[in-house]
Amino acid sequence: MIDFRPILFIVGVLLATLAAAMVLPAVADAAVGNRDWQVFAISAALTLFVGGILVLSTRGLARGGIGLRQAFVLTTLCWLVIPTFAALPFMFADLKLDYTDAFFEAKSGVTTTGATVIVGLDHAAPGILLWRALLQWLGGIGIIAMALVVLPMLQVGGMQLFRMESSDRSEKALPRAAQFAAWTGFLYLGFTLLCAALYRLAGMGGFDAVAHAMTTIATGGFSTRDSSVGFYKEPLIDLVAIIFMLIGSLPFVLYVRAVRGAPGMLWRDEQVRWFLGIVLMVVSAMTMYLVFLRGVAGPDALRMAAFNVVSVITGTGYATTDYGAWGGFAVTSMFCVMFIGGCAGSTTCGIKVFRLQVLYASANIQVRRLLQPNGVFIPYYNGKPIPDAVTESVMAFFFLFLLCFMAIAVGLSLAGLDFITAVSGAATAISNVGPGLGPIIGPAGNFASLPDPAKWLLAAGMLLGRLELFTVLVLLMPSFWRA
Amino acid sequence: MIDFRPILFIVGVLLATLAAAMVLPAVADAAVGNRDWQVFAISAALTLFVGGILVLSTRGLARGGIGLRQAFVLTTLCWLVIPTFAALPFMFADLKLDYTDAFFEAKSGVTTTGATVIVGLDHAAPGILLWRALLQWLGGIGIIAMALVVLPMLQVGGMQLFRMESSDRSEKALPRAAQFAAWTGFLYLGFTLLCAALYRLAGMGGFDAVAHAMTTIATGGFSTRDSSVGFYKEPLIDLVAIIFMLIGSLPFVLYVRAVRGAPGMLWRDEQVRWFLGIVLMVVSAMTMYLVFLRGVAGPDALRMAAFNVVSVITGTGYATTDYGAWGGFAVTSMFCVMFIGGCAGSTTCGIKVFRLQVLYASANIQVRRLLQPNGVFIPYYNGKPIPDAVTESVMAFFFLFLLCFMAIAVGLSLAGLDFITAVSGAATAISNVGPGLGPIIGPAGNFASLPDPAKWLLAAGMLLGRLELFTVLVLLMPSFWRA
Repeated sequence: MIDFRPILFIVGVLLATLAAAMVLPAVADAAVGNRDWQVFAISAALTLFVGGILVLSTRGLARGGIGLRQAFVLTTLCWLVIPTFAALPFMFADLKLDYTDAFFEAKSGVTTTGATVIVGLDHAAPGILLWRALLQWLGGIGIIAMALVVLPMLQVGGMQLFRMESSDRSEKALPRAAQFAAWTGFLYLGFTLLCAALYRLAGMGGFDAVAHAMTTIATGGFSTRDSSVGFYKEPLIDLVAIIFMLIGSLPFVLYVRAVRGAPGMLWRDEQVRWFLGIVLMVVSAMTMYLVFLRGVAGPDALRMAAFNVVSVITGTGYATTDYGAWGGFAVTSMFCVMFIGGCAGSTTCGIKVFRLQVLYASANIQVRRLLQPNGVFIPYYNGKPIPDAVTESVMAFFFLFLLCFMAIAVGLSLAGLDFITAVSGAATAISNVGPGLGPIIGPAGNFASLPDPAKWLLAAGMLLGRLELFTVLVLLMPSFWRA
Repeated sequence: MIDFRPILFIVGVLLATLAAAMVLPAVADAAVGNRDWQVFAISAALTLFVGGILVLSTRGLARGGIGLRQAFVLTTLCWLVIPTFAALPFMFADLKLDYTDAFFEAKSGVTTTGATVIVGLDHAAPGILLWRALLQWLGGIGIIAMALVVLPMLQVGGMQLFRMESSDRSEKALPRAAQFAAWTGFLYLGFTLLCAALYRLAGMGGFDAVAHAMTTIATGGFSTRDSSVGFYKEPLIDLVAIIFMLIGSLPFVLYVRAVRGAPGMLWRDEQVRWFLGIVLMVVSAMTMYLVFLRGVAGPDALRMAAFNVVSVITGTGYATTDYGAWGGFAVTSMFCVMFIGGCAGSTTCGIKVFRLQVLYASANIQVRRLLQPNGVFIPYYNGKPIPDAVTESVMAFFFLFLLCFMAIAVGLSLAGLDFITAVSGAATAISNVGPGLGPIIGPAGNFASLPDPAKWLLAAGMLLGRLELFTVLVLLMPSFWRA
């Protein structure tokens, strides 16, 4: 039997934190005299009440830390319970959202997906806009923390490749891990403030700059405008967004190491190089396509391609234009690119670059082995041999990722969605990108019109993708709950 | 340096055989007084001439068998040179096909894909119709022979799992292997004749029955009618087709073992069980969808679902109706199902069921390992532990299969195809299915209107899929040609 008490204690603490976070949008609304501040106050009270009960009823009952099974339950439960309560303001506010829509929006926020069901953002109250940004910002730092501490311990999908001193539980390691976490949070905050300042300088309004900075660094993609970043029509704003979306896609561990005296690791890291190489390749291809086959002027093509490709590849999900109207090549490329994601230990989701590297190294060896069946070949990652267990784990992840993608796509089509909406919806959910493709959920569209079962399925896909599949799938095994 | 002489010798022998095969459609045309017999006579002469030169100029120069590198070159070269010459009748005949179209049709025939660029089959000369059927029939037995002898030796994509006495090169094994090959050919012919007889009894004309029998057992899918098997509107014909498409999708090795006294192996084989289980599951789901969500009457729904699902899953590519018009669920499911394919050692293509089993077994173990990081888990296939080398090879295959699929899809979209045509075209080519999805290349469409670059790319995809990727990819490595 799994002891749920320490799990519920932590969930309670997180709910209390969430309630505290709700005070910010309440203040924002109160400041402009919008009565929605009451919505946040009520939601905060409700969330604090439940969180408080959980904390008080389990406090002191749990001793001796969290076991492996408990860690799996805790991780999944957190990402289920938090959006459940984070959805309350969306439902209570004057947005005419039912609970399905409210939950979808909250889930899309916390997982940094960025798919939205809200139409009319330009005229929405500041509280709601801030709440959406805040959810993504908290979700972003939450996932970095998870990738740093929890996932390598759980050995999920090859993440043990990134096990570091912080998951070592010896006496000495703990203070170092705490220091590391503090640095990570500090840098996350620093990047956000820098990004907001640059947005402001580039011409955004103060509130918009803060809200966008939060969702840029989190590679989330919620905007304060229905037409997303395309609203501003300002190249400098595009540039700031591109830079900080890329910053959000690199491993935060390397930033910490950089400020602590090893900046070279950032450039020498193979995952970073591959990621930037892929981005450069896709942006170049798309730019050339726009120039030579669609007759777009060079600078415009580069700007549009760079912004929207980076937005999709990093899973942010902003758009400056409807790239769905760029023709077959753009749509098909964007679809493929959705799966890539950024680096491990960043705020991005998707298959992630290090897994593609492990898969490539392994496939390369298989082809070479064909010619020398008795040859000994060892795959390398960042100059070190990749342990067999990592390769196997990554491959299983890749297989399950595509299996889940297909299952969600088929499920969505059963809910009544057409082919392109179903497959791009499944891809955008499991990779936490944001918009899909096609006329309904594409960059110019919105998820509001989808049937309720499709929304729940998409929300489930976001959870699966965000928790690297295994963390959720393991809970579905009957043997998990036995013994 | 690779000695090309023994390779060219075998290619020459195969071309001479191809020339001999061209006599059959020549006779068919001559019998009905169609002047197209001259087309086949000229093509045969040309093919025989080139084949003869190759044989005569290399005869006696090659001794001591074929090495590993030579086997890779030979395999790919055969599947390139044969369609090159098999295309001649398509170009010379009165079909108004240029060489691109003719090559596409020949390639689609030999690889048992079944995608066609010919419109007006109902009024075509018997010679051309017979030639199309013959190409698929020869391609079908060719691929079984390859799966039996060549691929396990090359250890391609986990096919070493099926290495048997026939690829053992000892003195004793050779007569046994020859006997095995003879039995396989005999059974292939027997199934074809039986299928033709049943088609005839079910109401097909004599010629159509023979032509369809050849393309059914080869899971090829070329029909003598523009509206494919849907032309006949006869449930019994549908039933015969379903049965023999399934027969063509099971491992022929097991048929040989069955007639030699071990029929039980056919039912006990895990690959066969999984394959039939998947077919049953998809057919049931599609039937229920048609009945409950599309209002189709039960028996009609079952018949339509069974025929078209089996046709797509086995990669045959017949159609009795435009399932593209069945709505999102049908289109999305058919898209997913395209990748599956049948069993190893059959005439089908695609990822194949045994690979899905290996991937599933491995993923299952990865999930279980999460809970017991130090536990020892061994994946099994057909009651035997799966060697690590096989698992790694299968996983590399899966990764490269999807990478190639995406590359072809992006390439097709660059040639001007829209999203659904590009992705379904790439899937149908690499899995050797036949029709794609969407209004252009869907079951009610035709590949004729595609731009030439798209046709060449699709033909390349068919080759890649048919030769299990590795056989072709290894030739692209610079190191293959060194030393």
